[in-house]
Amino acid sequence: MPDEPYDVIIIGAGPAGLAAGLYAARDRYATLLLEKNGLPGGQILLTEHIENYPGYETVGGPELVQHMQKQVEQFDAEIAINKAVTGLKRRDDGMIEVDVNDGETTYETEAVILSPGSDYRQLGLPGEDVMRQATRVSYCATCDGAFYRDKHVLCIGGGNTAVEDTLYLATRFTAKTTLIHRRMEFRAQKVLVEELYAKADENNIDIKLPYVATEIVPNAAGDAIDHVKVRNVETDAIEELKVDGVFIFVGMVPNTSWLEGFVPLDANGYIAADPITMKTPTPGVWVAGDCRQDAAMQLATACADGVTAAMGLKEYFRDFPDSESWAGVEPEAIEKDQVRGY
Amino acid sequence: MPDEPYDVIIIGAGPAGLAAGLYAARDRYATLLLEKNGLPGGQILLTEHIENYPGYETVGGPELVQHMQKQVEQFDAEIAINKAVTGLKRRDDGMIEVDVNDGETTYETEAVILSPGSDYRQLGLPGEDVMRQATRVSYCATCDGAFYRDKHVLCIGGGNTAVEDTLYLATRFTAKTTLIHRRMEFRAQKVLVEELYAKADENNIDIKLPYVATEIVPNAAGDAIDHVKVRNVETDAIEELKVDGVFIFVGMVPNTSWLEGFVPLDANGYIAADPITMKTPTPGVWVAGDCRQDAAMQLATACADGVTAAMGLKEYFRDFPDSESWAGVEPEAIEKDQVRGY
Repeated sequence: MPDEPYDVIIIGAGPAGLAAGLYAARDRYATLLLEKNGLPGGQILLTEHIENYPGYETVGGPELVQHMQKQVEQFDAEIAINKAVTGLKRRDDGMIEVDVNDGETTYETEAVILSPGSDYRQLGLPGEDVMRQATRVSYCATCDGAFYRDKHVLCIGGGNTAVEDTLYLATRFTAKTTLIHRRMEFRAQKVLVEELYAKADENNIDIKLPYVATEIVPNAAGDAIDHVKVRNVETDAIEELKVDGVFIFVGMVPNTSWLEGFVPLDANGYIAADPITMKTPTPGVWVAGDCRQDAAMQLATACADGVTAAMGLKEYFRDFPDSESWAGVEPEAIEKDQVRGY
Repeated sequence: MPDEPYDVIIIGAGPAGLAAGLYAARDRYATLLLEKNGLPGGQILLTEHIENYPGYETVGGPELVQHMQKQVEQFDAEIAINKAVTGLKRRDDGMIEVDVNDGETTYETEAVILSPGSDYRQLGLPGEDVMRQATRVSYCATCDGAFYRDKHVLCIGGGNTAVEDTLYLATRFTAKTTLIHRRMEFRAQKVLVEELYAKADENNIDIKLPYVATEIVPNAAGDAIDHVKVRNVETDAIEELKVDGVFIFVGMVPNTSWLEGFVPLDANGYIAADPITMKTPTPGVWVAGDCRQDAAMQLATACADGVTAAMGLKEYFRDFPDSESWAGVEPEAIEKDQVRGY
């Protein structure tokens, strides 16, 4: 255990965590960021080309992360990598114990900001990872749609996001959009599916059911897609689709399963919080970024979450209760409608 | 009147408006930003040295604005300067008419994002503006406190923010903090005032009542404060205080008076909105930035507001009602507790 407890420990050093660290450390709180991976940055490390972060006409994800990291460290925040948080416990004196790597280390802190992020659910196809790094496989139409003006993209999925974002891409950007789904029926709301079929012809949307993708084949240089192999689930026939990009819309998974019991999670695993303050119902615990219920899932909004969460420390520390008052403290009551999906 | 209506008009081209413009234009909505001043950028044009915008270790306000402006324009948004919006009217066909410069121009649009910002209330002292530009006069402790480690600052004001942020500066940054207020009693909550007096000695806070500032005198080079003249209101005696910085905490004024009747404003003039979506109760109208109720008043949070507001366009335009359905449409009911301060 380190010599002295931290004022605040930030769990997850993606953009939300780094922004929280910036504000916390600049306010001279003793700040530690714990990152489970070998580098800070989270999802944006996987993005070579960002053009929708306000203030950078265009920037690479790794480059932006480096700036954010330096910025945090210049205010003396510590960033510890390869530290997966495996448990959180509030002691009777109000301190929170943060267990890392299943007992390897225990840190003590007065406050916690949770920014573990969410991961896009991947299909695990051959070629998926390498083409993601080349910005040819995407999981977010708002993020990457603009790269596909007058191009042909393949969309994969059958839920609301798949249908909505296929329409979004087809009506605003692409010359052609192919949508495949592994069943004969979409899971999306009926009104969306009706709209999809109504607008398919005029927007050059090709709907192929029931199909799955089996491989994303890069070109020789490895910087673009040559073709995608798709299989008709009924006939097992394989087709090769020549597309410029692939959008995979099969859901997201917040990295929050280890938090159950410590903060309220909604039915999909997102952390419930006050959208104005980022406060969770657990005193001294805030949330920031893509793991938050109702998060907009954008780089700029994740950073703002972190800023807002860290700004809450000032009030919290002014009133930080003394040791006796914590024995048996329960999380504040949370309004039922604040945790939707329960 | 221009040839064709816009999809969205963004009112105010500060960081919130520019971020909204980026997302709207990148989504290929016909986007117009209206800025009342001769340059986009809003408040941050006045800040020479920003170190708390995630991703820039340090950047000048005007430089950051230039990046944001180029970024928006590369997606074909139009920015029109010297355009003060003087009226908004919803027509029966659902279109919104935007009146500029008291009838000089009328623009038509389907959706509006309101980002007119807020101004810090200034004291209007000689030297205040020029020392603000030199980052020696500030209106925001969270923004600029970190520049005053081990320095002497003068705080001015008597409300909650003045007392809270004097404590914040004195306990975290400064070597000495002088607080002046024009009356013998603070307007701030009693608990804060008690804390102020309890912590004054150990944190070297000098409380001078009843005093007003009369002049901020720059040094010969004009890049720092030489001294501030303050006057004892009872005796009229003038003193000269040698300080490194001045924090003026006398409130904010959202630029929203022209909006009354179009969207709900709270008692302080801030625009009420859903904090998750930035939607106002008026259909097709969003808000972003410092003019929003509960805004965190930071650069990063203003940008995120703009991003979130613009992301709402996608759903809105999918369901944009046809012309007949707008006659007599009233703003959606707003929960009373959504508009606090009414």
